[in-house]
Amino acid sequence: MTKGALALLINSRSQNWLPERWKARFEAVCGERPVVLLPNAELDPAEVHYAAVWKPVPGDLKAFPNLRAIFNLGAGVDALMADESLPDVPLVRVAVPDLTGRMTEYVVLHVLMHHRQELYLRQSQREKTWEPKYQWPASAVTVGIMGLGTLGADAADVLRRFGFRVVGWSRSPRSVDGVESFHGAGQMDAFLRATDILVSLLPLTPQTHGILNREVFAKLNRNSPLGAPVLINAGRGGLQNEDDILACLDDGTLGAASLDVFVEEPLPAASRLWSHPKVIVTPHNAADTDADAISAYVAEQIARFEAGAALENVVDRARGY
Amino acid sequence: MTKGALALLINSRSQNWLPERWKARFEAVCGERPVVLLPNAELDPAEVHYAAVWKPVPGDLKAFPNLRAIFNLGAGVDALMADESLPDVPLVRVAVPDLTGRMTEYVVLHVLMHHRQELYLRQSQREKTWEPKYQWPASAVTVGIMGLGTLGADAADVLRRFGFRVVGWSRSPRSVDGVESFHGAGQMDAFLRATDILVSLLPLTPQTHGILNREVFAKLNRNSPLGAPVLINAGRGGLQNEDDILACLDDGTLGAASLDVFVEEPLPAASRLWSHPKVIVTPHNAADTDADAISAYVAEQIARFEAGAALENVVDRARGY
Repeated sequence: MTKGALALLINSRSQNWLPERWKARFEAVCGERPVVLLPNAELDPAEVHYAAVWKPVPGDLKAFPNLRAIFNLGAGVDALMADESLPDVPLVRVAVPDLTGRMTEYVVLHVLMHHRQELYLRQSQREKTWEPKYQWPASAVTVGIMGLGTLGADAADVLRRFGFRVVGWSRSPRSVDGVESFHGAGQMDAFLRATDILVSLLPLTPQTHGILNREVFAKLNRNSPLGAPVLINAGRGGLQNEDDILACLDDGTLGAASLDVFVEEPLPAASRLWSHPKVIVTPHNAADTDADAISAYVAEQIARFEAGAALENVVDRARGY
Repeated sequence: MTKGALALLINSRSQNWLPERWKARFEAVCGERPVVLLPNAELDPAEVHYAAVWKPVPGDLKAFPNLRAIFNLGAGVDALMADESLPDVPLVRVAVPDLTGRMTEYVVLHVLMHHRQELYLRQSQREKTWEPKYQWPASAVTVGIMGLGTLGADAADVLRRFGFRVVGWSRSPRSVDGVESFHGAGQMDAFLRATDILVSLLPLTPQTHGILNREVFAKLNRNSPLGAPVLINAGRGGLQNEDDILACLDDGTLGAASLDVFVEEPLPAASRLWSHPKVIVTPHNAADTDADAISAYVAEQIARFEAGAALENVVDRARGY
């Protein structure tokens, strides 16, 4: 008897999501288990026991009557959670060191770019002017991380190594070494008041939708050594109000922003974010998913599960992440 | 009897070298010892026991017959060593965590900028194109650090935390945790062959003058995941051959360069480095000297010295650093 099939549902036009490449990677680690790319007219839906997905079309997953678990191939499950017909089986988030490391690279790079006045220095280079400005030490700057899960804790660890003061905020209380942690709506203002560089790594849920808005930006440290506070959003585009970001950059409420995610992706050509001199745009590549690391993780989780152990990193559906 | 005076000789037009600011800082930490800004016509040169200097005019220091030690306020002593009349007293380099931390910020920022394709991504933003390219993990990239003193070892420590492979090269053998170390002329080629991102933190001596040249660049890893190897020079401008850098960027021997130092500073407006699309210019601000940290360090060294202990970080004049 062959093992139940693993179905791959991948909907993305990005270079990182070439379905054939993912299929080859999964086949390399799945042993005798069939790996099937969907859509596939010859497949008997009853043979599918597992699905590994990226932005599947809502409704696609309910076609498999014997589905045992769903693996989401990226960090955020918001797109999946929007599927009201999602089968009631364990939904597993990937949590691999490779993805965490990539996100930490992005967060540290962008914190350092703003701390070290990169926007000013690139402008100086274009104008061929040699006028270094006073550079504060890292110890004078506070980085505030919203979202203290695996990603936030790892970024905090490296930022502290540079000497930055790191504070954190999360929905429920979290303890991270060396990080002054705030939680819940009641402690949000105190967190924001301390923050010079706001790093968003929040999951997108109904509660966090639009949370990066003028009201929040206005509460950031008004006496920042950076001049004005900075926003870095590497979470989800739905967290941010883009009109507020632009208006706050224009009136000085924010000094600069690094945005990896947007309300609409790809970012429309008409968006003023592309050309705003205080905005650094990246094309949602902060933490690309590495097919090798992820496929090995999924295969390992399935092996554990079939041996009777519990799946790890299962999404709490009530909480939304 | 008053203590012997500390004389300050500071020759720089940069914002970080305002002599009056330095004088105030030194007075705050020197207790009863007079702190004198030079030139000062009323000063009896015999009263000066210590000198704290930045780029003093050659010959100025020989005016003090009772000089006991010279403190160089920045990391590099090459400008001082060029003074053939330099008195034969201990010459002390500053080695403070503040300066080391700033240099590590610079090195990590620029390694990450090249690793994370910042030149490509900024061009994409200017052109409003959303086309992420494949992003290698840090573990696929080797950073080669030339100069494994305090600065090189600290940068290596943080780079390893990201997962980069780090190799190092120094004149004499050095051992740094987790760094594959090469030394001397005989092991230079093996070091270069392994290196995707070459970080120069070397002191400037007759032996290192012009060491960053085409012959060296051509030996870097020709199969780099970055496409072509990258140069980061945060040491001294005299280490680099700028015509070779430009020619190697143009013919693909180098993929990009971050330069904080230049043969002539400020970098002349006519230099093609300012406008080359693959060059990131910073105005020699990688590791600014912080007056608070440095003055405290000098005062502590003088106190130790007068209590009979040896001065730390004394320059080996034969070696040149």
